[in-house]
Amino acid sequence: MQPIVVKVGGAAGVNADAVCDDIATLVSRGRPVVLVHGVSAAADILAKRVGLPVRHITSPSGHVSRRTDPEMLDIYVGAVGQVNKRLVGTLQRLGCNAVGLSGMDGRLLTARRKAAVRVVEGGRQRIIRDDYTGLLDSANASLLNVLLASGYVPVIAPLAIGEEGEPLNVDGDRAAALVAGALNAETLVLLSNVPGLLARFPDESSLLRHIPTERVAVAEAAAQGRMKKKVLASIEALAAGVPSVVLGDSRRTAPLLAALDGQGTVIGQQLVETVSLPVAWALSGRQPAMQLRQAHGSQ
Amino acid sequence: MQPIVVKVGGAAGVNADAVCDDIATLVSRGRPVVLVHGVSAAADILAKRVGLPVRHITSPSGHVSRRTDPEMLDIYVGAVGQVNKRLVGTLQRLGCNAVGLSGMDGRLLTARRKAAVRVVEGGRQRIIRDDYTGLLDSANASLLNVLLASGYVPVIAPLAIGEEGEPLNVDGDRAAALVAGALNAETLVLLSNVPGLLARFPDESSLLRHIPTERVAVAEAAAQGRMKKKVLASIEALAAGVPSVVLGDSRRTAPLLAALDGQGTVIGQQLVETVSLPVAWALSGRQPAMQLRQAHGSQ
Repeated sequence: MQPIVVKVGGAAGVNADAVCDDIATLVSRGRPVVLVHGVSAAADILAKRVGLPVRHITSPSGHVSRRTDPEMLDIYVGAVGQVNKRLVGTLQRLGCNAVGLSGMDGRLLTARRKAAVRVVEGGRQRIIRDDYTGLLDSANASLLNVLLASGYVPVIAPLAIGEEGEPLNVDGDRAAALVAGALNAETLVLLSNVPGLLARFPDESSLLRHIPTERVAVAEAAAQGRMKKKVLASIEALAAGVPSVVLGDSRRTAPLLAALDGQGTVIGQQLVETVSLPVAWALSGRQPAMQLRQAHGSQ
Repeated sequence: MQPIVVKVGGAAGVNADAVCDDIATLVSRGRPVVLVHGVSAAADILAKRVGLPVRHITSPSGHVSRRTDPEMLDIYVGAVGQVNKRLVGTLQRLGCNAVGLSGMDGRLLTARRKAAVRVVEGGRQRIIRDDYTGLLDSANASLLNVLLASGYVPVIAPLAIGEEGEPLNVDGDRAAALVAGALNAETLVLLSNVPGLLARFPDESSLLRHIPTERVAVAEAAAQGRMKKKVLASIEALAAGVPSVVLGDSRRTAPLLAALDGQGTVIGQQLVETVSLPVAWALSGRQPAMQLRQAHGSQ
C-alpha cells in the first residue's frame, strides 16, 4: 500500500495532537504514514529564551524564511530535537511505533547551502553570506522504506545535510513534497492553520476546493504569504508523480482524516476513497464533526 | 561480524572528533559500530543560556546525576538534538552513514520513571517527585539490527521513553551497556576524560589494566565519582553476555582504536585481536602515537 505523507506546520495554534490521533487511526488500519513537521514556534520560543532575536528574510520572489546564522542554526537544531521528540512521544502513547529523524540522519534529506542569499530589505536587495538555509536536492527513500517495512512511522524534522555535512534549515513543506515524491506516496497532505487555499485571502468563504494539475497557475496566483511555499511544494510533488496534494486545516477536528476526505484544497487528481471515514471514526472512537457531515452532503 | 558499542562522554574535553575518525576507520573495514553519546556539557551550556540553574542530586549509594525537573527535561531534550546532530554531521563528513536516534525513537530504550527519587542533601535524605530520570528496562535490538544490516551507523542519545511515552533522562554508560548486551556486542568501550580505572584515584600511574570478571569487586572498590556508574555499566554488560568492556581515555590520539588495543582498563576477557591496528592506522592515514607503540612493546 502506498504511503500517505503528511506535513504538520510548526506554528502556534496547530493541533498536532489531533493529527497524531489521525495517524494512529490510519496506521492501525494498515496504511503506512510518514509525518514531516515544522519547528517555527519552538525555535522562536527557544531563541527568545536565550536572548537571540528572531529575524526573517524575504527573497526577491516574495518567499519569507527564517534568518539562520550560525547562532540561530544551533538553536534551530535544539528546537528540532524538542519538537521531534514531542511528536514521537505523542505517537508512541497512541501505540504508533514512531521513529524521529532529521534530514541529516542517513542523509535522509540532502541540500545545498545557499552560499549567497539574495534578500529584499526596505525595497533594496542585498546579499547574505553566513546563512544556513538549504536548497533541497534528494531524499533517501531507501531508509524510509526500510523503516516502513518494519512497521515504524518515520517522523521527519526539516533539517537537511549539506555538502560538507553541515545542518541546513530547509522548508518543511518542500521537504515533505520531496519525501512524498521519493516514496511514490498516494497523497501529500499539507496541514496548517488555514482552511486551505483562498481565492480572496483572507476571506475563508472563498476556499478553492479543487484545482486540477493543468490549472495550478490559479493556485499560484491566489497564494499569499506562507501559502506561496505550500503551492510551490504542491507543484513539486505533482511533478514528482504524487497524484494529489491536499492543503488542509490543522485546527479542526480530525484534521488529517478530513483532509483525506477532501476537506481543504485538493490540487491534482480528486482523491480516491481510500480511508473509509466512518470506519476510521469508529476505530478512533470519534464522531464526525457536524461541519464535516454538512460538507459531505453538499458535495 | 558482532558489533562494537562505544560510548563517548558528553563532558567538556572529550575528543569526539577523534572517536568519530576511529569509527570511520572501523566501519570502512566492515566492522559494525554503534555510538552512544552523553550530553552533559551541551545541556549545561543551553541551560545556562536560558538562565536555568544546573543542579545535581546524589543518591544514598553515592551516584550523582543531573536534576531533571520538567523545565530541565525540555532543555535536556534540546541539547540531545544538538549533540546528536553534531556527531551525525561529523560521521557523515567522514563517509559514515550515521543515523541519530534517541531512546524514544522506535522505543529503542524503554525506562521507568523514578516517581520518587531518594536524594542525600547535607547528610539528610529527602524525596523528589517531579524528576524525569529513568531506570532502563529494555533496548530494541531489532531496530538497530535493521539499520546495521543496511549499512547505517546508529548514534544514540541517552533519552529513553517512559511508560507514558514521556522522555526520560537516563545514564549514557548504562544505556550503552544495555545496547551492547541486546546486540551481543563483541566489546563495549566506555570513553571519558580519564585514562581508565585507577587503583588510587587520582594517581594516573595506578591504572588498573585488566580486571577479570571474577574480580569485579576490585573495580567496584576502586571506583570514585563518575567512575562508579561506568563500573556498574561494565558489570551489567558482562552479565548480559558482553565478553569485554574497556574503560578508555577519550582525550588521547586514536582513542577508540587504542581502547580496542587494550589501552585503558579491560574488564572481563582480555581482548581478542580483531582490529589489526597497523592496517587500521594505514587506512586512517595516521601514525600510531609513540606512547601506544611503547605500550605495545611492554605488554
